[in-house]
Amino acid sequence: MTGLTEKIIRPTLILDETRCRKNIMQMQARMEEQDVAFRPHFKTHQSKIIGNWFRDDGMHQITVSSVGMAHYFAGDGWDDITIAFPVNLRESRAIDDLAARVSLNLLAEDPEVIRLLDKELVSRAGVFLKIDTGTQRTGLNPFDVDRIDACVDALQKSSHLRWKGFLAHAGHTYHVRQSAAAIQAIYDEALPALQRLRDRYRATHPGIIISFGDTPGARLADFRGVDEMRPGNFVFYDVMQAGIGSCAMDDIAVAMYCPVVAVHPARMECVIYGGGIHFSKDSFVLNDGTITYGTVVAIQEAGWDTGTVYGYLRSLSQEHGVVRFTGAQMPAVRTGDLVCVLPVHSCMTAQCMTAYLDTQGHAIDHYASVMHT
Amino acid sequence: MTGLTEKIIRPTLILDETRCRKNIMQMQARMEEQDVAFRPHFKTHQSKIIGNWFRDDGMHQITVSSVGMAHYFAGDGWDDITIAFPVNLRESRAIDDLAARVSLNLLAEDPEVIRLLDKELVSRAGVFLKIDTGTQRTGLNPFDVDRIDACVDALQKSSHLRWKGFLAHAGHTYHVRQSAAAIQAIYDEALPALQRLRDRYRATHPGIIISFGDTPGARLADFRGVDEMRPGNFVFYDVMQAGIGSCAMDDIAVAMYCPVVAVHPARMECVIYGGGIHFSKDSFVLNDGTITYGTVVAIQEAGWDTGTVYGYLRSLSQEHGVVRFTGAQMPAVRTGDLVCVLPVHSCMTAQCMTAYLDTQGHAIDHYASVMHT
Repeated sequence: MTGLTEKIIRPTLILDETRCRKNIMQMQARMEEQDVAFRPHFKTHQSKIIGNWFRDDGMHQITVSSVGMAHYFAGDGWDDITIAFPVNLRESRAIDDLAARVSLNLLAEDPEVIRLLDKELVSRAGVFLKIDTGTQRTGLNPFDVDRIDACVDALQKSSHLRWKGFLAHAGHTYHVRQSAAAIQAIYDEALPALQRLRDRYRATHPGIIISFGDTPGARLADFRGVDEMRPGNFVFYDVMQAGIGSCAMDDIAVAMYCPVVAVHPARMECVIYGGGIHFSKDSFVLNDGTITYGTVVAIQEAGWDTGTVYGYLRSLSQEHGVVRFTGAQMPAVRTGDLVCVLPVHSCMTAQCMTAYLDTQGHAIDHYASVMHT
Repeated sequence: MTGLTEKIIRPTLILDETRCRKNIMQMQARMEEQDVAFRPHFKTHQSKIIGNWFRDDGMHQITVSSVGMAHYFAGDGWDDITIAFPVNLRESRAIDDLAARVSLNLLAEDPEVIRLLDKELVSRAGVFLKIDTGTQRTGLNPFDVDRIDACVDALQKSSHLRWKGFLAHAGHTYHVRQSAAAIQAIYDEALPALQRLRDRYRATHPGIIISFGDTPGARLADFRGVDEMRPGNFVFYDVMQAGIGSCAMDDIAVAMYCPVVAVHPARMECVIYGGGIHFSKDSFVLNDGTITYGTVVAIQEAGWDTGTVYGYLRSLSQEHGVVRFTGAQMPAVRTGDLVCVLPVHSCMTAQCMTAYLDTQGHAIDHYASVMHT
């Protein structure tokens, strides 16, 4: 891999295919073990090449987080796509184009939106009702049966929309630190509410399902009883997921390689080319309250070695990052060297970087490189 | 402007040219008043079109934060460019290409880097020694004269590098809240240290200058005695700058227009299409400890009206933002409407968005749209 590190000029996101494929297979095994359908969320990797690794393992249903991302994957032959984001009525033309090409599922939580969407569409689409299981972002209150009834009624009266079931996202699992029990408690609260809803409507709508899932729950909880899971982050994991307990540091499949541009031994620090525009500003707070933006590990010939943790990214400006070394002695870092940083939030770092190199130096695509065009 | 709001389908960054040009002219007047040369930092806007508004006002020297950004502006006829980022030795070929085309200034703080850079270059470039005036990011300690002497010596012995002077950035002004006196105190500590250095070396190097500046200081402090200032953010300002006291809310020249995708009157909230990948995750903490990601104001026919503040962005996911309305009554927001959000950190939001529309709906370029190519 001497070739790879010599090739790197600017901050570069490196993808370890071996770790990534292992993460995919492990999650797939977990779904089989719990007898739940798997519809992986592609918003983490946003890559056609990585998507093909899922296809290699027999998967054909996916989740995305935007209409544009759905078009990106539809263009690569994916034909069963759920857009797990509330319908944006201003995109109804692009949604209709998609619905004409693929089996498309949308999200709604408002009877009026369902009626307006139905009028805008020419093609047919599935609709999940979004349920809020405690994240307090989007979704219907699972106890607000009047409003849920109104949504179901609007779907029944629609010409182009078919009700697919209930969809929820337990985003609050991300606040847990190293506790499978706490993740399970979140699931134990959410699942009965979702199952009660499904049971209530299944007599009249036998086909409806529960779609659930996030990476911490998919990895750590017992989720039997839901019909489908949609984790996404597991494809790479990151420092945040290791902090939650969803993965080991050695499972993390992406890392930033950044050139050193200044060395400050007196502060046990070096400054890297690699800032907020490369990593994103997502941070992870250590137990002692320290705010960190990534974990610095050793670069090896074949990639990186999480057995040697050198320190952490302590601050990020637009283009700079400051690495704090935490060992007894500062490693012999020189200007022009590369430092390897495992990201706090791999979805956001990949989005900022808009591309990957694998450990052999091959380019891997990302939707962000075309999303604004 | 009915045309503009109807045209917006997804989260869109809107630029108000009138406010932007006023900000440029006001800062230029401030530089003239203090008799200091102006070398605006283009890392905030990163736009050739906006760069031309500076050229319209007679400016011809600029600052950028990366080699790629320097190439972008060199391609538009800018021929006097300082890259205010420590030399990344891995980019020496691209630096040399630039040095052949324009009058280029670089940053260094290490005698060894100066020697290595000199060997790599064919063309000539200027070098500023970076001084740390308290930010604790990059830079030489202003009292470490031995190391400064070693840098000066390496520059004197170099074949391709010419010493231009001392450059510093008072990034810690960003921690101030509503206090011109606190900004002035930072300047009163930094300026004498820089002036002492300049005086020490001017006998042997009469041409050297002090380059300083950041938006809060450039707007609020007395900085007479430095030779050149490099503020950048003032071109747009943002919620952070208004919090520091560098600008009024009505000076902010960019705003995000985001479609509403869910309405939650019981929580006094709505959910917008517009998340961390659009705004960046930079936040601003209100006096009561509330973390905010943007300020929501009214959309008007001709742009936006900061006289009506509806609330703030209380959280950001990858694609979602949650708006908390703070008035006595929640405005009559419906799904499909647009919400206008003034960003916390305009540099980062512009970087994420990679383009602007002006209030007439014309496209304005941003370097981020090509930076990874």
